[in-house]
Amino acid sequence: MSAILCLNAGSSSVKFSLYRYSPDASLLLTGSVSGLTADQQYLTYTSYKSSSEILESIKNQEIDCPDHDSAFKVFMEHLDSKIGENRLLSIDDIYVACHRIVHGGGNPRPLLITEEVYHELDILSDLAPLHNQRALDIVHSCISRLKGTKNVAFFDSSFHMTIPRHIYTYPIDLDVQKRHQIRKYGFHGLSYAFITHETADYFGVDEGDLNIIALHLGSGASACAILGGKSINTSMGLTPLEGLPGATRSGSLDPSLIFHYHSDSSRMSTASSKDVHLTIAEDILNKRSGWQSITGTTDFGLITKRAVEENDELAKLAFDMFVDRVSMYVGQYWVALQGKAVALVFAGGIGEKGKEFRTAVIEKVSCLGFTIDEERNITASTTSDVVFDVSKKDAEVKTLVVQTDEQLQMAKEVIATRL
Amino acid sequence: MSAILCLNAGSSSVKFSLYRYSPDASLLLTGSVSGLTADQQYLTYTSYKSSSEILESIKNQEIDCPDHDSAFKVFMEHLDSKIGENRLLSIDDIYVACHRIVHGGGNPRPLLITEEVYHELDILSDLAPLHNQRALDIVHSCISRLKGTKNVAFFDSSFHMTIPRHIYTYPIDLDVQKRHQIRKYGFHGLSYAFITHETADYFGVDEGDLNIIALHLGSGASACAILGGKSINTSMGLTPLEGLPGATRSGSLDPSLIFHYHSDSSRMSTASSKDVHLTIAEDILNKRSGWQSITGTTDFGLITKRAVEENDELAKLAFDMFVDRVSMYVGQYWVALQGKAVALVFAGGIGEKGKEFRTAVIEKVSCLGFTIDEERNITASTTSDVVFDVSKKDAEVKTLVVQTDEQLQMAKEVIATRL
Repeated sequence: MSAILCLNAGSSSVKFSLYRYSPDASLLLTGSVSGLTADQQYLTYTSYKSSSEILESIKNQEIDCPDHDSAFKVFMEHLDSKIGENRLLSIDDIYVACHRIVHGGGNPRPLLITEEVYHELDILSDLAPLHNQRALDIVHSCISRLKGTKNVAFFDSSFHMTIPRHIYTYPIDLDVQKRHQIRKYGFHGLSYAFITHETADYFGVDEGDLNIIALHLGSGASACAILGGKSINTSMGLTPLEGLPGATRSGSLDPSLIFHYHSDSSRMSTASSKDVHLTIAEDILNKRSGWQSITGTTDFGLITKRAVEENDELAKLAFDMFVDRVSMYVGQYWVALQGKAVALVFAGGIGEKGKEFRTAVIEKVSCLGFTIDEERNITASTTSDVVFDVSKKDAEVKTLVVQTDEQLQMAKEVIATRL
Repeated sequence: MSAILCLNAGSSSVKFSLYRYSPDASLLLTGSVSGLTADQQYLTYTSYKSSSEILESIKNQEIDCPDHDSAFKVFMEHLDSKIGENRLLSIDDIYVACHRIVHGGGNPRPLLITEEVYHELDILSDLAPLHNQRALDIVHSCISRLKGTKNVAFFDSSFHMTIPRHIYTYPIDLDVQKRHQIRKYGFHGLSYAFITHETADYFGVDEGDLNIIALHLGSGASACAILGGKSINTSMGLTPLEGLPGATRSGSLDPSLIFHYHSDSSRMSTASSKDVHLTIAEDILNKRSGWQSITGTTDFGLITKRAVEENDELAKLAFDMFVDRVSMYVGQYWVALQGKAVALVFAGGIGEKGKEFRTAVIEKVSCLGFTIDEERNITASTTSDVVFDVSKKDAEVKTLVVQTDEQLQMAKEVIATRL
């Protein structure tokens, strides 16, 4: 047997999924280590006997795990101890390990990680100091622990390499842009690739004929205009900071704002490390802003509850801000697609679970023809369907909820390209 | 007789207009000193015998005039020498001098400039170091030279004080915002007030019933969503830097961009002076970016010519970038107005003169119902009509060109409020 291991290092968690290397990429096990920036870490883990039958399931087991690389080691040890119990025969069966890497520079497709490529990825970390290093640490562990396994880097920016030049270019000195590889890159590309594929399937059309506006809304949030299956614009930019606000990110704001209250913002932040060089400004705008800075919590579910049920003033402010900023992107991308979008897709933690949020956004963009059926909207948060239509019956343009899966997207790409 | 003097200090010019204090605010004379940031300055000047008959006209007379305040002095001397020749009897007849001031903080209306107010305006200059100082220098001259004249400050931000809290608030620390008066302010407000008034008149409706998307596109460019005659969103922010790119401004971009190629961007720029404290970052993004940094010229007419007639690659890039960014705002504000806009208004130098630009934008936003009649579009650039409809016959939503006039707006407000 042969298996595909998919690793996804987020800001405070590592998710891992193991698939059979087979046309259907059947799931063998999936799990995560969370709480990596908090005091206590938790292991969640489910292994499968078959696609419908669970072998073992652990939820939020307290573990001691200081960083992303340790999380990977925890997972490997756990896996090692389970060999024979599930359908995976041996760790040597892991034919390929897929790594989601946020910033891929101009790379339009996945890369087999040779020593040369690893070095290249390391250099790319300068473009995305906050984002790439964690994944690279895990790549490093994989190389040393899984001797026979191929390692492949999947970039969150690759999907957006189809954005036209006049959109990815910034209105600043062109030489500077060229010399420093400055352009709009865009992120959440694995998620958008998954959404595109599943939505085209749902409509029974080729990806090349699919025009949609997609929203990946989680702690990090972005929007994407997809024309003929390809990204033609997205809200994130040179880094994931641009565009929509997130749990701790400001998103776009007046580029001179930071200089209005911080006289020394280009100095290195104390959050910098040997590998991660970060200015105070970047630290504030990436890690100490967003809806946490308005409400005190990063949990948008809690913010929604406080806003809707308790009429809490600041929660309502954060909720309304996010609804407004998201709606504005829907308007922009409706124009970017010249009114040809067949659906608005909600995905990511908030997109998939936030029924009140979906209702509020659809109310704002109803002038474009989007609708929401409240009964279906409630069902969407509990369904296991990958694509779920929450529009009103006979709506000309659909409102869809897609349960996006970046790990599965990597596994599918491995199988499709016979990597 | 009594007259109203309106002064409008731009980045490289000072415009001045003198109106009779009468219900129709008839124009006595108007002119400008331009080239204030170049080697040679020019005086342009037209005085009127009656509303239709010119008394004297000078165009681009070479003068020596090092700064904004000197420009005002040139104008005053010129005016002095003409007393008796035109309808103005004496300089003492200037009852009120109106000053367009870019940043008015939270002031929702014009202010009579007492000593206290002058001090307050001076403090506001910290919020807008690049923008307010020039106007304040002229206020100072007026106070000392025109002893019997009232001075009134009109703020470009006032029109936007109706923007709701969840839109004007940035997703950053709320205490910081409060302490440092950080919020979306928005600018070009005198122009938007003029556009609102004239467009409502054109449609024969009350301003309170007017919903439009307005574009003020010049060296500085912005967009505004106007619902019931009031601003509910605009593209500029804490400062005029946010939003659309301009001749030398970047507009919005990844807030971390500047830190990716400039390690010391929060240091004071050499362009700073005693009164104007400016970081390197603000200097680069305000004065060394925009379409000049792509094409080498600030003249969008020239860029359009090169793009359209000569197929020049970089001119085409800058042209397409600006068309894209403007169209995206039209999409946003269509949603902000929930599809209720009755017109898209083009104003400002590029909005009024750029027929190729208007055509290109309307093509992008045609999915919202906007149209352009090419014959009328050509006529719009030469007509003297203040409001000119360039839509196709029977268009449900109109495309209008409005010849905006910030000085006239100030004069009208003086008369309407009997200041």
